[in-house]
Amino acid sequence: MSDIQAFADFIRELDQLKAVKRQVRLPCDGDRQENSAEHSWHVALMANVLAPYAEQAIDIQRVTQMILIHDLVEIDAGDLFAFAEVADHAEQETKEFAAADRIFGLLPEAQGKHLHALWHEFEAAETADAKFAKAMDRVLPVFQNMAAEGGSWVRHNVAKSKILARNAHLEHCAPKLWAYVNEQLDLAVSKGWLTA
Amino acid sequence: MSDIQAFADFIRELDQLKAVKRQVRLPCDGDRQENSAEHSWHVALMANVLAPYAEQAIDIQRVTQMILIHDLVEIDAGDLFAFAEVADHAEQETKEFAAADRIFGLLPEAQGKHLHALWHEFEAAETADAKFAKAMDRVLPVFQNMAAEGGSWVRHNVAKSKILARNAHLEHCAPKLWAYVNEQLDLAVSKGWLTA
Repeated sequence: MSDIQAFADFIRELDQLKAVKRQVRLPCDGDRQENSAEHSWHVALMANVLAPYAEQAIDIQRVTQMILIHDLVEIDAGDLFAFAEVADHAEQETKEFAAADRIFGLLPEAQGKHLHALWHEFEAAETADAKFAKAMDRVLPVFQNMAAEGGSWVRHNVAKSKILARNAHLEHCAPKLWAYVNEQLDLAVSKGWLTA
Repeated sequence: MSDIQAFADFIRELDQLKAVKRQVRLPCDGDRQENSAEHSWHVALMANVLAPYAEQAIDIQRVTQMILIHDLVEIDAGDLFAFAEVADHAEQETKEFAAADRIFGLLPEAQGKHLHALWHEFEAAETADAKFAKAMDRVLPVFQNMAAEGGSWVRHNVAKSKILARNAHLEHCAPKLWAYVNEQLDLAVSKGWLTA
């Protein structure tokens, strides 16, 4: 198979991510569920505008690539709600590893390996780039739920401590954003959108 | 207003692009219309994997940023079908310029100016980065319509010459992709998905 044909297969496969639904709803579009493709766009653009808040040096191109691919495994594995049971997370990880093999395997070898490695780096969240990328992925629902009067937090009766723990990467990645998130979460508790 | 508040307003505004509908339909998700946010993600990721086909040197980070923001003006101006009448295009441009002022104006000044300038560069399609970004935006529906047995081409009875003209940037930007597109369009004519 020619390289172009492999790229074409990968590009067509990407359409599938538009059918993967998340817990976040979109009041601006009939309150439908957000999908993982438009979410990935939102996180990628947000990371580009918030990059000046990164405390450590980051390579925004690597960060952006990680974000663009971070949810591709959901094409096979689906999206797991952030606050699902621990056992579900372990099963999800097994599915996601198999999905990464299949989906990045569609590409010509060199490029498939490059993106596969970036995806693992994002998942491990140990490098400065991956920590910042993951922090962006996790903070976006804070902006969205605050704009939607609590949104998925209210529907799932979520505690402030869970959101703080989920956004803990921010404290060292981007301390000014961490301070802002803390203020926003206090406001959410005072409004009854998060439990104390 | 603090910078963080300005960023937050911009980030929340981005949700609106998820409500802007395009002509492309998604067979993988109940044949609904694609929206401009998920389209922007798709083009951005495609540009990153197809970058090796660029004939001239490009800065993929600038290309990616252009693609991530290229449709933001549609939040106010809506998406115009590629093959609408010429008079509609002139009116659309006026609306898009006003939209760019408003939307990039939400950001802190330095960053708003940076993205506003990138958007104009994309629109003008004169630099190597902008030509490649625009070529990616225009070639994606070729992949999608070929996968959907003609898709929006069939619904709108489109001629092959229109698609060739729309993708003409590719000839110099990425000659191998241009050759591939020519083969694909010949195939589409033979299948009756495009008129000759």
